[in-house]
Amino acid sequence: MNKPKILVSNDDGIEAPGLEKLVHALGEFADVYVCAPYRQQSAVGHSITIFYPIRAHEHYKNGKFFGIAVEGTPADAVKIGVLNFFKDVKFDLVVSGINHGANTAINIIYSGTVSAATEGTILGIPSVAVSLTTFDKTDFTDASEIAAKLIRKILYDDNIKLNKGTLLNINIPGVPKDQIKGVLITKQGKSYWEDSFEIRSDPNGKDYYWLTGKMVILDDSHEYDISAVRDNYISITPLHYDLTDYRTYEEIKNWKIEI
Amino acid sequence: MNKPKILVSNDDGIEAPGLEKLVHALGEFADVYVCAPYRQQSAVGHSITIFYPIRAHEHYKNGKFFGIAVEGTPADAVKIGVLNFFKDVKFDLVVSGINHGANTAINIIYSGTVSAATEGTILGIPSVAVSLTTFDKTDFTDASEIAAKLIRKILYDDNIKLNKGTLLNINIPGVPKDQIKGVLITKQGKSYWEDSFEIRSDPNGKDYYWLTGKMVILDDSHEYDISAVRDNYISITPLHYDLTDYRTYEEIKNWKIEI
Repeated sequence: MNKPKILVSNDDGIEAPGLEKLVHALGEFADVYVCAPYRQQSAVGHSITIFYPIRAHEHYKNGKFFGIAVEGTPADAVKIGVLNFFKDVKFDLVVSGINHGANTAINIIYSGTVSAATEGTILGIPSVAVSLTTFDKTDFTDASEIAAKLIRKILYDDNIKLNKGTLLNINIPGVPKDQIKGVLITKQGKSYWEDSFEIRSDPNGKDYYWLTGKMVILDDSHEYDISAVRDNYISITPLHYDLTDYRTYEEIKNWKIEI
Repeated sequence: MNKPKILVSNDDGIEAPGLEKLVHALGEFADVYVCAPYRQQSAVGHSITIFYPIRAHEHYKNGKFFGIAVEGTPADAVKIGVLNFFKDVKFDLVVSGINHGANTAINIIYSGTVSAATEGTILGIPSVAVSLTTFDKTDFTDASEIAAKLIRKILYDDNIKLNKGTLLNINIPGVPKDQIKGVLITKQGKSYWEDSFEIRSDPNGKDYYWLTGKMVILDDSHEYDISAVRDNYISITPLHYDLTDYRTYEEIKNWKIEI
């Protein structure tokens, strides 16, 4: 088999250490192409830029071409990478990450990291999102090696086949490697944010608002991403972008509504 | 029963005619509160603003208080409306719209209109997104009356109960009222964009990129939102924010992955 071709993106921006380490680890067995946002883009959800044009430029590290930096969202970066800059490459995989911070439970729907992988599946390419579940200053070397190992399996193991339109959302616990207990296939956890807005005054006496809050976890089983990583398991959750609530659909499909 | 209390938001911005007409039609039977983005926010997906503070101010129309204009995304607007500006109001419903343009099939995941309603369900409030499926210049009077009628039913009909976490995504065909054939409960359609980027040069000779494309519909049954509205039915799709791909989960939950 030829070397697999992997497009790497993220939402922390092309200069993020999590991306650089991942590119390095994947480069051990794959041809890696980078197309990532120029700037930090966290919590952008699945945005795309349609009312403005996008700028993009070649990005260099230590004098060497590293990838394409896109002045846009993670989904923009994957779209323009696949459809424009690397349009002659037949990608085997899109990988988004490694995000600095968990993307589990309710946070998935705000996640730019997951959004980049979602855009990969929309474009027909199997896709993976990878996050390291710590917000502390961290080194991504171990997480990158783990991610690369998992991604090799996903690409080469004949027992592991992804359905079209499915992405794998991988969360790696932010603990030393020897404390990781194994890998669990999980579901998106149920949680909510106890949010509030802190009101402050600017130097001109005008109010502005900061979002603040803490997440409340509603399930406590290793079947769910958020509890699995809390207990030091690597969590792999299959996600798709069909938002239909089928349970409710079955309940309501015979509603008679006249207008 | 007291008058129901409804928070209205959108992604086209607080000055959009679709919002104004909707507020007017809902005002016939409900207490209506408006908290909407200050500016057009289409295709923002489910973004929230966390790295910057949010500005928000009272917005007046014809000298009268109309609502709160939020310099942020649709999800920001709903969050700050519920948690801050109208925190003493116990909302019965969040309604997002009326969007100028369809929110069906793949477009749902890019939709700011749906995102505002999603944020409502995340905050524990039953929520509805309403879109009018035309991009032509249009009058929203008929669509607003239809939307208000449907929303009254959702609030008052004892046979119609929404599960927690489920929102209803309503698309109204952009045709004269007498051509509308009825109401169908649907699933999110399968479709994709045949996208490309058009490369242009700015006056300084630097490239910029415009996203362009056409949507390809992959299903042709009235079970799906996009085909239902194409054939002049009002489409109501139950959506939720659990992105777990359960079919794949069942297939892969016994994967043995060593690291």
